Amino acid sequence: MKLYNFAMAPNPKRVAIFIAEKGVEIETIEVNIRAGEHKTPAFTAINPLQDLPLLQLDDGTHINQVNAICRYIDDVYPEPPLYGRTPEERAKVESWNHRVQMEGIGAVTDAFRNSSPNFVGRAIAGPHSYEQIPALAERGRLRIDNFMKDMNAHFADNQFVLGDYFSVVDITVFMSIEFATWVKKKIPEDCTHLQRWFDAMSARPSIKK
Amino acid sequence: MKLYNFAMAPNPKRVAIFIAEKGVEIETIEVNIRAGEHKTPAFTAINPLQDLPLLQLDDGTHINQVNAICRYIDDVYPEPPLYGRTPEERAKVESWNHRVQMEGIGAVTDAFRNSSPNFVGRAIAGPHSYEQIPALAERGRLRIDNFMKDMNAHFADNQFVLGDYFSVVDITVFMSIEFATWVKKKIPEDCTHLQRWFDAMSARPSIKK
Repeated sequence: MKLYNFAMAPNPKRVAIFIAEKGVEIETIEVNIRAGEHKTPAFTAINPLQDLPLLQLDDGTHINQVNAICRYIDDVYPEPPLYGRTPEERAKVESWNHRVQMEGIGAVTDAFRNSSPNFVGRAIAGPHSYEQIPALAERGRLRIDNFMKDMNAHFADNQFVLGDYFSVVDITVFMSIEFATWVKKKIPEDCTHLQRWFDAMSARPSIKK
Repeated sequence: MKLYNFAMAPNPKRVAIFIAEKGVEIETIEVNIRAGEHKTPAFTAINPLQDLPLLQLDDGTHINQVNAICRYIDDVYPEPPLYGRTPEERAKVESWNHRVQMEGIGAVTDAFRNSSPNFVGRAIAGPHSYEQIPALAERGRLRIDNFMKDMNAHFADNQFVLGDYFSVVDITVFMSIEFATWVKKKIPEDCTHLQRWFDAMSARPSIKK
């Protein structure tokens, strides 16, 4: 298989960290979003949604979306399992991952794409054009604050999002926090539990530069 | 196990259809959202996120979020599998399901919660208060139009979302369309493929009243 990716963007980075946690090597082809390479006819032909990351299987099948790609990798390289080890844990991973996708990644995406001059008329990824909504950028910033506070409270009693089990959700939270710096939001000083968790994440070999 | 649900709301309905497709019986307790029963101290104690549906396992564990609950049920009652039968199919289900969650359910949610007088100050589900954004309701309506057109094109060549395989994604699309009537959006007359698919879905025993 082959991964089309753009190293510096948040969703591609989630997949890159996931692959590193699995300890596997996957051939990666860089598609420069900033240079518009994801909008070319050649790339649109293989991915009409024009988003990254995109996984190409050996039979030519294409899979897009972060969690679809990561679940596929988890399926074919089961160790270590990052989507849960029991039905209950798998459900908890899905629940938390959706929540963080909406409240973390989603909030930062709203804040960023509705305010950056680079995304005028492209407030939502994909082939349709949507105008920016300044009030949505503002609401996104408020949601980031709430997300940081909520996660800080959670990490007061938990080593990882799922207690003592490291999962894909930790990667999703990590990228939410890192992506938040794109709209100049940092972990507040009084969020010491979140900071402790973030520092531990930053030291993992999958993330550490 | 026990399911806390509110029969008329879209996300609870997705779980109810999923359970019917599985052909299993799960004890269900009705929590009336309209009467604010999900905001009571008793319900908040078991679900701080105050959302429905909520699944309670026999050991007292609680699982919230539609896909977390449905995946749990799919795990413990594997037949018929509704999240895919192979790694590739499971990845496609995840990818499509996320897409429809954002472009279908998400678009209608934006349109509805940012315009209904019942959701002033509660534009996003959960314990945090967010003001409505009228421009977001408008954008939601535009996204619904695009979603219907895109799905119509897809169903020109496909019996179900995943070709000839019925999956959880068909339920997600179905509820997107049904929920869209809450903001007075119907399948456009020229979307004949989508209408054909919708009529077939409406006739399934899991949905038919």
